[in-house]
Amino acid sequence: MPLPATEAAVIETFMRHLGAVRPDVVLGIGDDAALLRPQPGCELVQTTDALVEGVHFLPHSAPRSLGHRALAVNLSDIAAMGASPAWALLSLTMPAIDAAWLGEFATGFGNLARSHAVALVGGNLSRGPLTVTVQLSGQVPAGTALRRSGARAGDEIWVSGTLGDAALGRQLQPRGDDDAHAAWLRARAEFPTPRVALGEALRGIASACIDVSDGLLADLPRLAQASGCGAELQLERLPLSAAAQARGGESAWQQALAGGEDYELCFAAPPARAAQIAAVAARLAVPLSCCGRLRGAPGLELRRHGAVIGFSQLPFDHFAI
Amino acid sequence: MPLPATEAAVIETFMRHLGAVRPDVVLGIGDDAALLRPQPGCELVQTTDALVEGVHFLPHSAPRSLGHRALAVNLSDIAAMGASPAWALLSLTMPAIDAAWLGEFATGFGNLARSHAVALVGGNLSRGPLTVTVQLSGQVPAGTALRRSGARAGDEIWVSGTLGDAALGRQLQPRGDDDAHAAWLRARAEFPTPRVALGEALRGIASACIDVSDGLLADLPRLAQASGCGAELQLERLPLSAAAQARGGESAWQQALAGGEDYELCFAAPPARAAQIAAVAARLAVPLSCCGRLRGAPGLELRRHGAVIGFSQLPFDHFAI
Repeated sequence: MPLPATEAAVIETFMRHLGAVRPDVVLGIGDDAALLRPQPGCELVQTTDALVEGVHFLPHSAPRSLGHRALAVNLSDIAAMGASPAWALLSLTMPAIDAAWLGEFATGFGNLARSHAVALVGGNLSRGPLTVTVQLSGQVPAGTALRRSGARAGDEIWVSGTLGDAALGRQLQPRGDDDAHAAWLRARAEFPTPRVALGEALRGIASACIDVSDGLLADLPRLAQASGCGAELQLERLPLSAAAQARGGESAWQQALAGGEDYELCFAAPPARAAQIAAVAARLAVPLSCCGRLRGAPGLELRRHGAVIGFSQLPFDHFAI
Repeated sequence: MPLPATEAAVIETFMRHLGAVRPDVVLGIGDDAALLRPQPGCELVQTTDALVEGVHFLPHSAPRSLGHRALAVNLSDIAAMGASPAWALLSLTMPAIDAAWLGEFATGFGNLARSHAVALVGGNLSRGPLTVTVQLSGQVPAGTALRRSGARAGDEIWVSGTLGDAALGRQLQPRGDDDAHAAWLRARAEFPTPRVALGEALRGIASACIDVSDGLLADLPRLAQASGCGAELQLERLPLSAAAQARGGESAWQQALAGGEDYELCFAAPPARAAQIAAVAARLAVPLSCCGRLRGAPGLELRRHGAVIGFSQLPFDHFAI
C-alpha cells in the first residue's frame, strides 16, 4: 500500500469506510460536514472523550487497542444513557503518518464500530502529539434516557460485569507471563466491553445510571449526588473476577473501588425491580450484582461484612492536586 | 476566583454556561452525555475540527482568539452545508490548569457561540499538549443541504467577503505597527467571521458550496471535482480588501489564492441566479464576487486579464510532502 501523503489521502484510505454502513447516513465523510437522518420521536445523545499519549495511554501502546478504547469510552457514555449509538466523528493528531500504525488503529476502531452499528461520518487529521478524540452520537426514544439524577433513597445499587480487572491488567508486565488470569486482565484493560445492550435493556427499569470510568468510588457519588442521595456500599458484594481475586489478592477490592477504566454500568433501581434485572442479566449473559443502596443521608459509606471501614486510595482525576 | 483543581471543577466553572441557552437542549453538560431534541423534518449536520499548538497556532497565541477560532472553523463547515448550527462539544487538552487563560479562551468561544445560538452541551478536559477539538452539530431542512457535488459546467463561481486577509494578518509583526489596514488584517486572522447566515440564505440558490479554509487553490478544485467538472478562475476578479491591496502588494492575490484560513464561502450557481445572489449580498451586507465558472474539462485554469497563467505556490496541507 503506498504511503498516503496528505490528510485527505489518510482520511480516504483509513477512515472513509471504517465503521458500519447505516441507511440513515445521507452523506458521510468527504464533504464539509456529514448529513444524518435522525429517527422521529427520538432524542439525540452526544458525548466526546479524548485519549492523550502519556496521560491515558503509554507511549508505544498497541494501536489496535487504542482504536478500540477511543471508541469504547464513548460507547460507554452512550450506554450509560440507555441510548443506541449511531454516528461517530474521529479527530486524530499524530506526529507523522505511519501507515502500519494507522492500519492497526483502524482495525481496532472499525471492529468495535461495526459490532455496534456505528458509522464513522467525520474524520480530521492533524500533525501533533498523539491524541485521539472521538465524538459519538446516539438516539433514545424521547423521555426514556437514563440519567444520573433519577434515583431515590432506598433504591438498590447494581454493577455490571466485574470491577478492577482493567486496573490490574494495566499493572501487568509487558507480555510473556500471561496465564489465563493475566490474559483476562490484560484483555479487560486493552479491549474493554462497553455495555451498550445492557444500557438499552435498562430503560424503564433503572432509576439512574452512570458508567464506571474513574472507579466506583468516584462515579457512584456522582450518581448519588445528582439524585440528592448518599450511598452505602457493601464491599464483599463487589463483583470481582476469578482473575482479579487470584492475581490481585487483597488489593483486588481496592482496584475494584478505585482502579477505574472498567466501563461497566452502575445503576440504581427500586428493590421491586430485582426480578426484572435478573431477567435482563440472564437474557444478555451479563452478570449484574446488587452491592449497596441509596440513602437519604449524604456521603458514601463503605461497609465490609457489616462494619464501616475507611479508605485511603483516592480515585483518578486528571488534574487532582 | 479560586483555582479549580479538577476536571469537573474546570468544566463547571468555564464550560457549563459557555454557550447559548437553547430550548432544544433537554440535558446539557453534567451527565454521561447530552440529550438534544432534533427539529422534525430536518437532517442533522455534523463536523469536527482541531487546533493544535505549533501546527494551527503559535505557542503563546492569545487564548481569546483561539477560543473564537476553534468554534469558527467548525461554524464555517456548517455554513458551507447551508445548515443552522445548534450544539457544540469541546475537548480541551492543556498542560496545566491556567484560570486566566481559560477565562480568556471561554470569552472568545462563548461570544461567538452566543452570537450564533450555539449551546455547548459537552465538555472534556485532559492534561497534555495544548489542543482544542470542537465538534459541532447543526440542522438543515431535509434535502436542502448544500453539497460540494451539485454544480454543473457553466455554473458561475462565487466567493464571499475578501480573500487573503488572514494569511497577510498572520505575517504581521506582533502588535505595535497597527494602522487601520494592519488592524483589519490581524482581526481577520484572529477573529474570522464564519458565513453562517449566508450559507442559510444560499439554500435553493447555490448548486454547490465549500468553505475556503485551505485557500481557493485547494478548495475550489474539491468542489469542481466533486461536481465532475473543472474550473476557470479569473484572478483580477478575486475579492481583495483595501488592506490586502495596500499591505500585500503583488503578493495579495497569491495569498488570496493559497493563503488559507479565510473561512469565506465559495459556491457555484447557474448564471440565471445572479440577480438573486445580488439580493442576498445586499440583504446580508456580505460582498459576493463572481470570479469564474465551472467547465466540462477537468483541472483548474487560472486567467489574468484573459491570459492563462501558472502558479508555483502550493496550498497548505498538514502532511504534504
